[in-house]
Amino acid sequence: MPHIALPENMPGITGGFAFRPETAKPMRELAHILLHSSGDEAFSSADRELIATFVSSRNTCYFCQTSHGAAAAHLHGGDQALMDAVCRDYKTAAISTKMKALLAIAEQVQIDGKRVTAELVHEARQQGATDLEIHDTVLIAAAFCMYNRYVDGLATVQPHNPEMYIEMGKRMAEKGYSPTV
Amino acid sequence: MPHIALPENMPGITGGFAFRPETAKPMRELAHILLHSSGDEAFSSADRELIATFVSSRNTCYFCQTSHGAAAAHLHGGDQALMDAVCRDYKTAAISTKMKALLAIAEQVQIDGKRVTAELVHEARQQGATDLEIHDTVLIAAAFCMYNRYVDGLATVQPHNPEMYIEMGKRMAEKGYSPTV
Repeated sequence: MPHIALPENMPGITGGFAFRPETAKPMRELAHILLHSSGDEAFSSADRELIATFVSSRNTCYFCQTSHGAAAAHLHGGDQALMDAVCRDYKTAAISTKMKALLAIAEQVQIDGKRVTAELVHEARQQGATDLEIHDTVLIAAAFCMYNRYVDGLATVQPHNPEMYIEMGKRMAEKGYSPTV
Repeated sequence: MPHIALPENMPGITGGFAFRPETAKPMRELAHILLHSSGDEAFSSADRELIATFVSSRNTCYFCQTSHGAAAAHLHGGDQALMDAVCRDYKTAAISTKMKALLAIAEQVQIDGKRVTAELVHEARQQGATDLEIHDTVLIAAAFCMYNRYVDGLATVQPHNPEMYIEMGKRMAEKGYSPTV
Protein backbone atom coordinates (compact mmCIF):
# COMPACT_ATOMS: atom_id res chain seq x y z
CA MET A 1 0.00 0.00 0.00
CA PRO A 2 1.40 3.43 -0.93
CA HIS A 3 2.68 5.61 1.92
CA ILE A 4 0.42 8.51 0.86
CA ALA A 5 -3.00 8.72 -0.79
CA LEU A 6 -2.03 8.21 -4.43
CA PRO A 7 -4.78 7.89 -7.06
CA GLU A 8 -5.81 4.24 -7.30
CA ASN A 9 -5.03 1.85 -10.14
CA MET A 10 -2.04 3.86 -11.31
CA PRO A 11 1.06 1.65 -11.25
CA GLY A 12 4.54 2.79 -10.29
CA ILE A 13 5.60 6.30 -11.19
CA THR A 14 2.23 7.11 -12.80
CA GLY A 15 0.73 7.26 -9.30
CA GLY A 16 3.24 9.88 -8.17
CA PHE A 17 2.81 11.80 -11.42
CA ALA A 18 -0.98 11.93 -10.99
CA PHE A 19 -0.61 13.03 -7.35
CA ARG A 20 1.68 15.96 -8.24
CA PRO A 21 1.33 17.07 -11.89
CA GLU A 22 3.59 20.10 -11.31
CA THR A 23 6.66 17.93 -10.65
CA ALA A 24 5.56 15.27 -13.17
CA LYS A 25 5.95 17.73 -16.04
CA PRO A 26 9.72 18.36 -15.79
CA MET A 27 10.36 14.74 -14.76
CA ARG A 28 8.63 13.52 -17.92
CA GLU A 29 10.38 16.13 -20.07
CA LEU A 30 13.76 15.05 -18.78
CA ALA A 31 13.05 11.37 -19.52
CA HIS A 32 11.77 12.27 -22.98
CA ILE A 33 14.97 14.16 -23.89
CA LEU A 34 17.31 11.58 -22.39
CA LEU A 35 15.61 8.43 -23.63
CA HIS A 36 13.49 9.26 -26.63
CA SER A 37 14.15 12.42 -28.59
CA SER A 38 17.90 12.74 -28.93
CA GLY A 39 17.74 12.09 -32.66
CA ASP A 40 21.18 10.53 -32.29
CA GLU A 41 21.56 7.41 -34.40
CA ALA A 42 24.95 6.53 -32.88
CA PHE A 43 23.47 6.53 -29.39
CA SER A 44 19.94 5.43 -30.01
CA SER A 45 16.85 5.25 -27.88
CA ALA A 46 17.41 1.47 -27.75
CA ASP A 47 20.81 2.01 -26.12
CA ARG A 48 19.54 4.73 -23.79
CA GLU A 49 16.63 2.57 -22.56
CA LEU A 50 19.14 -0.21 -21.95
CA ILE A 51 21.17 2.03 -19.63
CA ALA A 52 17.96 3.04 -17.80
CA THR A 53 17.07 -0.65 -17.40
CA PHE A 54 20.53 -1.55 -16.13
CA VAL A 55 20.64 1.23 -13.53
CA SER A 56 17.09 0.42 -12.38
CA SER A 57 18.11 -3.21 -11.93
CA ARG A 58 21.12 -2.16 -9.83
CA ASN A 59 18.70 -0.07 -7.72
CA THR A 60 16.39 -3.13 -7.61
CA CYS A 61 13.38 -1.03 -8.63
CA TYR A 62 10.96 -3.61 -9.98
CA PHE A 63 8.61 -1.21 -11.77
CA CYS A 64 11.32 0.78 -13.57
CA GLN A 65 13.47 -2.22 -14.39
CA THR A 66 10.54 -4.13 -15.85
CA SER A 67 8.89 -1.29 -17.78
CA HIS A 68 12.12 0.16 -19.21
CA GLY A 69 13.36 -3.38 -19.80
CA ALA A 70 10.27 -3.97 -21.93
CA ALA A 71 10.82 -0.67 -23.78
CA ALA A 72 14.47 -1.56 -24.42
CA ALA A 73 13.52 -5.07 -25.55
CA HIS A 74 10.90 -3.65 -27.93
CA LEU A 75 13.56 -1.36 -29.46
CA HIS A 76 16.01 -4.29 -29.70
CA GLY A 77 13.69 -6.37 -31.88
CA GLY A 78 11.84 -7.92 -28.94
CA ASP A 79 14.98 -9.43 -27.43
CA GLN A 80 14.07 -9.61 -23.73
CA ALA A 81 16.84 -12.17 -23.16
CA LEU A 82 19.40 -9.51 -24.10
CA MET A 83 18.07 -7.19 -21.38
CA ASP A 84 18.28 -9.98 -18.83
CA ALA A 85 21.85 -10.76 -19.93
CA VAL A 86 22.87 -7.09 -19.60
CA CYS A 87 21.41 -6.84 -16.09
CA ARG A 88 23.05 -10.12 -15.09
CA ASP A 89 26.52 -9.34 -16.47
CA TYR A 90 26.82 -6.63 -19.13
CA LYS A 91 30.50 -7.43 -19.69
CA THR A 92 29.62 -10.78 -21.30
CA ALA A 93 26.36 -9.68 -22.99
CA ALA A 94 26.00 -9.46 -26.77
CA ILE A 95 26.31 -5.67 -26.98
CA SER A 96 28.92 -3.37 -28.56
CA THR A 97 32.19 -2.56 -26.82
CA LYS A 98 31.06 1.08 -26.78
CA MET A 99 27.91 0.16 -24.87
CA LYS A 100 29.96 -1.90 -22.43
CA ALA A 101 32.22 1.10 -21.81
CA LEU A 102 29.20 3.38 -21.26
CA LEU A 103 27.58 0.85 -18.91
CA ALA A 104 30.84 0.73 -16.93
CA ILE A 105 30.42 4.49 -16.36
CA ALA A 106 26.73 4.12 -15.48
CA GLU A 107 27.62 1.32 -13.07
CA GLN A 108 29.80 3.69 -11.02
CA VAL A 109 27.37 6.64 -11.19
CA GLN A 110 24.69 4.39 -9.67
CA ILE A 111 26.91 4.01 -6.59
CA ASP A 112 28.47 7.49 -6.46
CA GLY A 113 29.38 9.99 -9.19
CA LYS A 114 32.85 10.36 -7.73
CA ARG A 115 33.62 6.76 -8.71
CA VAL A 116 33.70 7.66 -12.42
CA THR A 117 37.41 7.67 -13.26
CA ALA A 118 39.37 9.29 -16.07
CA GLU A 119 40.29 5.74 -17.13
CA LEU A 120 36.64 4.72 -17.59
CA VAL A 121 35.98 7.87 -19.62
CA HIS A 122 39.13 7.33 -21.69
CA GLU A 123 38.03 3.77 -22.44
CA ALA A 124 34.58 4.99 -23.57
CA ARG A 125 36.26 7.48 -25.94
CA GLN A 126 38.53 4.71 -27.27
CA GLN A 127 35.38 2.75 -28.09
CA GLY A 128 33.96 5.72 -30.03
CA ALA A 129 31.84 7.52 -27.44
CA THR A 130 31.48 11.31 -27.83
CA ASP A 131 31.34 13.87 -25.02
CA LEU A 132 27.58 14.13 -25.50
CA GLU A 133 27.19 10.36 -25.16
CA ILE A 134 29.31 10.32 -22.01
CA HIS A 135 27.33 13.26 -20.62
CA ASP A 136 24.01 11.61 -21.36
CA THR A 137 25.16 8.29 -19.90
CA VAL A 138 26.09 10.01 -16.62
CA LEU A 139 22.78 11.88 -16.56
CA ILE A 140 20.62 8.86 -17.46
CA ALA A 141 22.26 6.90 -14.64
CA ALA A 142 21.87 9.83 -12.22
CA ALA A 143 18.25 10.45 -13.26
CA PHE A 144 17.28 6.82 -12.68
CA CYS A 145 18.74 7.08 -9.18
CA MET A 146 15.98 9.70 -8.79
CA TYR A 147 13.13 7.92 -10.59
CA ASN A 148 13.86 4.61 -8.83
CA ARG A 149 13.93 6.22 -5.36
CA TYR A 150 10.74 8.15 -6.13
CA VAL A 151 8.87 5.01 -7.20
CA ASP A 152 10.09 2.93 -4.25
CA GLY A 153 10.12 5.74 -1.66
CA LEU A 154 6.38 6.33 -2.09
CA ALA A 155 5.74 2.56 -1.99
CA THR A 156 3.82 2.83 -5.25
CA VAL A 157 1.74 -0.06 -6.51
CA GLN A 158 3.96 -2.29 -8.69
CA PRO A 159 1.88 -5.09 -10.22
CA HIS A 160 3.57 -8.33 -11.25
CA ASN A 161 1.85 -8.66 -14.59
CA PRO A 162 4.15 -9.39 -17.54
CA GLU A 163 1.55 -8.43 -20.17
CA MET A 164 1.03 -5.01 -18.60
CA TYR A 165 4.77 -4.25 -18.76
CA ILE A 166 5.13 -5.45 -22.35
CA GLU A 167 2.28 -3.16 -23.40
CA MET A 168 3.64 -0.26 -21.33
CA GLY A 169 7.18 -0.75 -22.66
CA LYS A 170 5.92 -0.75 -26.26
CA ARG A 171 4.06 2.51 -25.64
CA MET A 172 7.08 4.11 -23.92
CA ALA A 173 9.40 3.01 -26.74
CA GLU A 174 7.10 4.34 -29.45
CA LYS A 175 5.68 7.53 -27.90
CA GLY A 176 8.27 8.54 -25.30
CA TYR A 177 7.52 10.50 -22.15
CA SER A 178 6.57 14.02 -23.19
CA PRO A 179 3.93 15.58 -20.90
CA THR A 180 2.04 16.63 -24.02
CA VAL A 181 1.68 13.03 -25.28
CA MET B 1 39.49 18.52 -14.53
CA PRO B 2 36.04 17.67 -15.89
CA HIS B 3 35.67 14.35 -17.72
CA ILE B 4 34.22 16.07 -20.81
CA ALA B 5 34.76 19.50 -22.40
CA LEU B 6 32.49 21.61 -20.21
CA PRO B 7 32.47 25.42 -20.68
CA GLU B 8 35.23 26.92 -18.52
CA ASN B 9 34.75 28.94 -15.35
CA MET B 10 31.33 27.46 -14.66
CA PRO B 11 31.33 25.79 -11.25
CA GLY B 12 29.48 22.59 -10.37
CA ILE B 13 26.15 21.94 -12.03
CA THR B 14 26.27 25.18 -14.04
CA GLY B 15 28.97 23.56 -16.23
CA GLY B 16 26.68 20.61 -17.05
CA PHE B 17 23.74 22.95 -17.62
CA ALA B 18 25.73 25.08 -20.07
CA PHE B 19 26.96 21.97 -21.93
CA ARG B 20 23.43 20.60 -22.43
CA PRO B 21 20.74 23.32 -22.19
CA GLU B 22 18.02 20.86 -23.29
CA THR B 23 18.35 18.76 -20.14
CA ALA B 24 19.15 21.81 -17.96
CA LYS B 25 15.66 23.22 -18.55
CA PRO B 26 13.59 20.45 -16.90
CA MET B 27 16.25 19.94 -14.21
CA ARG B 28 16.04 23.61 -13.24
CA GLU B 29 12.24 23.58 -13.40
CA LEU B 30 12.07 20.60 -11.07
CA ALA B 31 14.38 22.27 -8.54
CA HIS B 32 12.38 25.49 -8.76
CA ILE B 33 9.10 23.73 -7.96
CA LEU B 34 10.53 21.54 -5.20
CA LEU B 35 12.68 24.14 -3.45
CA HIS B 36 11.40 27.57 -4.28
CA SER B 37 7.88 28.03 -5.54
CA SER B 38 5.68 25.77 -3.46
CA GLY B 39 4.00 28.74 -1.78
CA ASP B 40 3.57 26.48 1.24
CA GLU B 41 4.22 28.32 4.48
CA ALA B 42 4.04 25.15 6.60
CA PHE B 43 6.81 23.56 4.51
CA SER B 44 8.84 26.53 3.47
CA SER B 45 11.69 27.02 1.04
CA ALA B 46 13.96 27.25 4.13
CA ASP B 47 12.94 23.71 5.16
CA ARG B 48 13.13 22.35 1.61
CA GLU B 49 16.64 23.73 1.07
CA LEU B 50 17.62 22.15 4.38
CA ILE B 51 16.55 18.69 3.13
CA ALA B 52 18.49 19.28 -0.12
CA THR B 53 21.57 20.23 1.93
CA PHE B 54 21.25 17.21 4.19
CA VAL B 55 20.91 14.71 1.31
CA SER B 56 23.81 16.34 -0.57
CA SER B 57 25.95 15.99 2.54
CA ARG B 58 25.05 12.29 2.80
CA ASN B 59 26.08 11.95 -0.85
CA THR B 60 29.26 13.93 0.01
CA CYS B 61 28.71 16.27 -2.95
CA TYR B 62 30.78 19.31 -2.02
CA PHE B 63 29.29 21.73 -4.54
CA CYS B 64 25.62 20.92 -3.80
CA GLN B 65 26.08 20.65 -0.06
CA THR B 66 27.88 23.99 0.14
CA SER B 67 25.69 25.99 -2.26
CA HIS B 68 22.36 24.66 -0.95
CA GLY B 69 23.72 24.91 2.59
CA ALA B 70 24.36 28.61 1.93
CA ALA B 71 20.85 29.01 0.47
CA ALA B 72 19.30 27.26 3.47
CA ALA B 73 21.38 29.34 5.90
CA HIS B 74 20.32 32.54 4.12
CA LEU B 75 16.66 31.52 4.52
CA HIS B 76 17.26 30.62 8.19
CA GLY B 77 18.46 34.10 9.11
CA GLY B 78 22.08 33.45 8.16
CA ASP B 79 22.44 30.54 10.58
CA GLN B 80 25.16 28.45 8.92
CA ALA B 81 25.85 26.69 12.22
CA LEU B 82 22.33 25.22 12.11
CA MET B 83 23.03 23.68 8.68
CA ASP B 84 26.27 22.16 9.98
CA ALA B 85 24.42 20.76 13.01
CA VAL B 86 21.71 19.20 10.80
CA CYS B 87 24.31 17.54 8.57
CA ARG B 88 26.27 16.32 11.59
CA ASP B 89 23.29 14.93 13.54
CA TYR B 90 19.81 16.18 12.63
CA LYS B 91 18.26 14.34 15.57
CA THR B 92 19.91 16.70 18.06
CA ALA B 93 19.77 19.87 15.91
CA ALA B 94 17.56 22.85 16.85
CA ILE B 95 14.82 22.12 14.31
CA SER B 96 11.15 21.16 14.69
CA THR B 97 10.07 17.60 15.42
CA LYS B 98 8.25 17.65 12.06
CA MET B 99 11.48 18.48 10.25
CA LYS B 100 13.28 15.71 12.13
CA ALA B 101 10.61 13.24 11.02
CA LEU B 102 10.88 14.40 7.39
CA LEU B 103 14.68 14.20 7.49
CA ALA B 104 14.37 10.64 8.81
CA ILE B 105 12.44 9.81 5.61
CA ALA B 106 14.97 11.66 3.41
CA GLU B 107 17.78 9.79 5.18
CA GLN B 108 16.38 6.45 4.01
CA VAL B 109 15.52 7.62 0.47
CA GLN B 110 19.16 8.68 0.03
CA ILE B 111 20.15 5.03 0.56
CA ASP B 112 17.21 3.27 -1.11
CA GLY B 113 13.55 4.25 -1.49
CA LYS B 114 12.50 0.82 -0.24
CA ARG B 115 13.91 1.69 3.20
CA VAL B 116 11.10 4.20 3.85
CA THR B 117 8.83 2.38 6.30
CA ALA B 118 5.19 2.88 7.24
CA GLU B 119 6.46 3.70 10.75
CA LEU B 120 8.59 6.60 9.51
CA VAL B 121 5.65 7.96 7.50
CA HIS B 122 3.29 7.52 10.47
CA GLU B 123 5.71 9.44 12.69
CA ALA B 124 5.89 12.30 10.16
CA ARG B 125 2.08 12.48 10.13
CA GLN B 126 2.04 12.47 13.95
CA GLN B 127 4.32 15.50 13.80
CA GLY B 128 1.93 17.31 11.46
CA ALA B 129 3.28 16.47 8.02
CA THR B 130 0.76 16.32 5.16
CA ASP B 131 0.78 13.89 2.23
CA LEU B 132 2.13 16.65 0.00
CA GLU B 133 4.97 17.34 2.41
CA ILE B 134 5.84 13.64 2.61
CA HIS B 135 5.68 13.39 -1.19
CA ASP B 136 7.92 16.41 -1.67
CA THR B 137 10.40 15.16 0.96
CA VAL B 138 10.74 11.85 -0.90
CA LEU B 139 11.13 13.64 -4.23
CA ILE B 140 13.62 16.26 -2.97
CA ALA B 141 15.76 13.47 -1.52
CA ALA B 142 15.45 11.42 -4.74
CA ALA B 143 16.16 14.43 -6.96
CA PHE B 144 19.34 15.29 -5.07
CA CYS B 145 20.54 11.72 -5.60
CA MET B 146 20.37 12.77 -9.27
CA TYR B 147 21.84 16.28 -9.01
CA ASN B 148 24.70 15.09 -6.75
CA ARG B 149 25.63 12.23 -9.08
CA TYR B 150 25.44 14.52 -12.11
CA VAL B 151 27.77 17.10 -10.53
CA ASP B 152 30.27 14.50 -9.30
CA GLY B 153 29.93 12.07 -12.23
CA LEU B 154 31.09 14.72 -14.71
CA ALA B 155 33.92 15.75 -12.34
CA THR B 156 32.75 19.36 -12.56
CA VAL B 157 34.91 22.18 -11.20
CA GLN B 158 34.02 22.71 -7.52
CA PRO B 159 35.95 25.70 -6.16
CA HIS B 160 36.66 25.92 -2.43
CA ASN B 161 35.76 29.57 -2.06
CA PRO B 162 33.39 30.37 0.84
CA GLU B 163 32.47 33.84 -0.49
CA MET B 164 31.40 32.41 -3.84
CA TYR B 165 29.02 29.94 -2.18
CA ILE B 166 27.54 32.55 0.16
CA GLU B 167 26.78 34.78 -2.83
CA MET B 168 25.45 31.84 -4.87
CA GLY B 169 23.29 30.60 -2.00
CA LYS B 170 21.77 34.06 -1.50
CA ARG B 171 20.90 34.25 -5.19
CA MET B 172 19.43 30.72 -5.19
CA ALA B 173 17.40 31.47 -2.05
CA GLU B 174 16.02 34.72 -3.46
CA LYS B 175 15.52 33.94 -7.15
CA GLY B 176 15.14 30.16 -7.27
CA TYR B 177 16.06 27.99 -10.22
CA SER B 178 13.62 28.74 -13.01
CA PRO B 179 15.20 28.50 -16.48
CA THR B 180 13.58 31.83 -17.31
CA VAL B 181 15.38 33.65 -14.43
